Amino acid sequence: MAIQTLPFSTLISIERTSATPVFRQLAGAIITLISNGKIKPGHQLPSTREMAGLIKLNRTTVVAAYDELSAQGWLEVDGRKGMFVSKRLPVVGPQSFKSANHSTSDGSGEKDFYRQISFGRPPRHEVKPFHLMINDGYPDHRIAPLNSIFNRYKTLFTKNHLQGPLLTGNPAGSLSLRTELAGFLSKTRGLNIDSENLLVTAGAQLAIYIAASMVLKAGSTVIVADLNYILADKLFEQLGAKLLKVKVDEHGIDVDAIEEICSRSRPDLLYIIPHHHHPTTVTLSAERRMKLLDIISRYQLPVIEDDYDYDFHYNNSPVLPLASADHNGYVLYVGSISKNLAPSIRMGYLVGSVDFVKQASRLKQLIDIRGDVLYEESIAHLFSTGEMQRHLRRSVKLYRQRRNRFCELLKASLGNLVQFTVPQGGMAVWITFPEDYSISELSDRLYEKGIYMNDGSIFRYSDTVNGIRLGFASLNDAEMETFAHALAQVR
Amino acid sequence: MAIQTLPFSTLISIERTSATPVFRQLAGAIITLISNGKIKPGHQLPSTREMAGLIKLNRTTVVAAYDELSAQGWLEVDGRKGMFVSKRLPVVGPQSFKSANHSTSDGSGEKDFYRQISFGRPPRHEVKPFHLMINDGYPDHRIAPLNSIFNRYKTLFTKNHLQGPLLTGNPAGSLSLRTELAGFLSKTRGLNIDSENLLVTAGAQLAIYIAASMVLKAGSTVIVADLNYILADKLFEQLGAKLLKVKVDEHGIDVDAIEEICSRSRPDLLYIIPHHHHPTTVTLSAERRMKLLDIISRYQLPVIEDDYDYDFHYNNSPVLPLASADHNGYVLYVGSISKNLAPSIRMGYLVGSVDFVKQASRLKQLIDIRGDVLYEESIAHLFSTGEMQRHLRRSVKLYRQRRNRFCELLKASLGNLVQFTVPQGGMAVWITFPEDYSISELSDRLYEKGIYMNDGSIFRYSDTVNGIRLGFASLNDAEMETFAHALAQVR
Repeated sequence: MAIQTLPFSTLISIERTSATPVFRQLAGAIITLISNGKIKPGHQLPSTREMAGLIKLNRTTVVAAYDELSAQGWLEVDGRKGMFVSKRLPVVGPQSFKSANHSTSDGSGEKDFYRQISFGRPPRHEVKPFHLMINDGYPDHRIAPLNSIFNRYKTLFTKNHLQGPLLTGNPAGSLSLRTELAGFLSKTRGLNIDSENLLVTAGAQLAIYIAASMVLKAGSTVIVADLNYILADKLFEQLGAKLLKVKVDEHGIDVDAIEEICSRSRPDLLYIIPHHHHPTTVTLSAERRMKLLDIISRYQLPVIEDDYDYDFHYNNSPVLPLASADHNGYVLYVGSISKNLAPSIRMGYLVGSVDFVKQASRLKQLIDIRGDVLYEESIAHLFSTGEMQRHLRRSVKLYRQRRNRFCELLKASLGNLVQFTVPQGGMAVWITFPEDYSISELSDRLYEKGIYMNDGSIFRYSDTVNGIRLGFASLNDAEMETFAHALAQVR
Repeated sequence: MAIQTLPFSTLISIERTSATPVFRQLAGAIITLISNGKIKPGHQLPSTREMAGLIKLNRTTVVAAYDELSAQGWLEVDGRKGMFVSKRLPVVGPQSFKSANHSTSDGSGEKDFYRQISFGRPPRHEVKPFHLMINDGYPDHRIAPLNSIFNRYKTLFTKNHLQGPLLTGNPAGSLSLRTELAGFLSKTRGLNIDSENLLVTAGAQLAIYIAASMVLKAGSTVIVADLNYILADKLFEQLGAKLLKVKVDEHGIDVDAIEEICSRSRPDLLYIIPHHHHPTTVTLSAERRMKLLDIISRYQLPVIEDDYDYDFHYNNSPVLPLASADHNGYVLYVGSISKNLAPSIRMGYLVGSVDFVKQASRLKQLIDIRGDVLYEESIAHLFSTGEMQRHLRRSVKLYRQRRNRFCELLKASLGNLVQFTVPQGGMAVWITFPEDYSISELSDRLYEKGIYMNDGSIFRYSDTVNGIRLGFASLNDAEMETFAHALAQVR
């Protein structure tokens, strides 16, 4: 069976009329393949029997060629395992994928046929291991009901005739999941929607990307908060839009500034995170919310409402999303299931009018055809059995305790060095340092102790704010204490 | 715990100074919530104790309000489960997401703030169940090593300190998977690449989308085969590009026609499926491949080489991909892992120069942040243990038998009605019918027998070809015979 070997019969051509013996021709051809990197040091060659079959030569000829190559040091025998290209040979680097005109590191590669994208988390700390990670707001995967999801998945996977019907379904995603989500979102957020208003995506980011792609084109304008979730800003720019930045304070985004912009010239989009704004964790006040709904209605302003964290509020009275009010379909609502379970599980959703969702589903099909429908069905099962709801109740209770404990510990270990407000919800605390304090150096000192903490540089594109998000939800008591202890030592 | 109920304290306001008794005010507020669809028929209300806590009223007041509502028929008690909104009430449809200006079904919704996308598989056959699906070329998920993947996933998931390091890694995807894939692609296709040349995506479609988004902008031109994989055509158009269509015959795409186009004005991209072209399954001949490589080099023509089916060839001598030759990074190579395992498992990859992959990874981050890294690591484990390779060997052997048997059965049941060539590889047979034969009606007749067969209308945008792809790889002998028997009856 030749499937996992190169197609040697097309790579090796033997001239039977040549003066060179066939076994030497074969050996020469193999040397060429090794020299130009087609076969690499350490790779196994087919057995003499297999090779003889592949290239239609007598087996003794192949034996002779392999012997010759072994003698020359190109090949070596590894016990009974077979014949390998010598590991001592230098690896020949990729030639085929070596660009002719190397673009210099950033931005200046104008001669290339593809875009340069001026964005990226800095690649530091990639190699060295660490024992504790302080993320910017992940759930604790250790309490997620993974076994329930996988058991359901296996059941669905092995049902003979099930995959077909699921795969021919709606590109908006599993009907069961959309139905369960519609009920869940109606009950918890008053959205009052049906399955037809829902598009399931591989994470909230894809939901934002699809929504923005549906609305924006080159030259469009988008109102965003300053500061804002940076991956949203960058994707709007990537789609050719111009950002109009509006300040955010302790009551949320400055709604009067939004109105002023609209009164001059209606923007194409407003992107807003009303609950536990990213990065600052502030929540839009009820008063501003009402004002904003009025602006949306008067100016027919399309909105992406990113409500990734709604399920995690620790007070009794969350303000309802904008999307639950009357808005004639202008509010596109984005949520995350990843945030309910574990960061590695990629699932989110987009809510809009029935026609919007129909169009957006077509775009989704062009982007990734569909998600893993069986996974979606398995998550739907979590909702229909009530396990998701129980999991969320447990999570909220646990994260509330962790938020309280984490804030106490921060106060104790950093004292007056930082400022922060205890967040009403979400999974992270936003702390700010004095302007001249280097969070990056703090991060380096923590890293020496095996603690990885993002240095916040990704959010620091406003020169006036020196802040960082510290996720508490994924840390148990011992981990919080380890972190706090290290902070106190290296601050 | 109020997490899964509406935030009643913000929705219900009680005027203590009002002449209306508080319990009547509460009842009235709940009627309003039911009437405007915020609480739906069949939904459960919080218990009187919970509700009293939520809205800070005396519990007896809540009991009085609930009694009043029950008497009026708004609520009903379901045994010991609690208080529910009466199921006999009419469901109030979504108001918030009802667009003000309803766009008519297709294309004419100019007044809307979002795009209309003129594409979609027809939604027929969505509701009625069927017992056999003839797809257009899926692997047989029943032989996929799902347990190995899930067992590995669970191990990784429960390791305390592992998720952090994985999640902070390269946005191009799991390093283990990229390393394993680089070795596998080098060994099987002679690509001679490293992990840095690889970007892992949620399926081959996303790899094509990302590659195209990196290269194309509004007004770009793309050479495509006619016929072509329709989701590629549609996504290029969606990105604003113009399609330049070139005929495909039994030796693959017409390379002379490509040269002619290039000699007039260099296009921005060539999209090609050299092995088992979609939909026609033809393979690019060795001679045309050489010519095409020369054209790519002379005109510096960027190429997306979609090689989704490479691992499934049933002859001994596959032609190597274009990407394995020298091309100075102009060939972007796309492959599928979904095709190796199961259609529900969404995984693919994109290969390019190191700088291209770096830039494309940034774009990927804006689209979906990252894939499920633990899933990627679990697939990597399949490669490193050799289980994937063994699975592929078994699959190829099985699918070769199925191809042979399926073609025999087609011949027997359809005879001279159709034309087809036994495909050298891949998972589907491309059959063509006489011009006046209605495949759509054939599909309807099969559907009456519980067999779902795509009617091919999705590929029939060239008026001269009346063809359809019939996938054989996912059908066992009994299923093939059921299908052939039905075909013979209803043809």
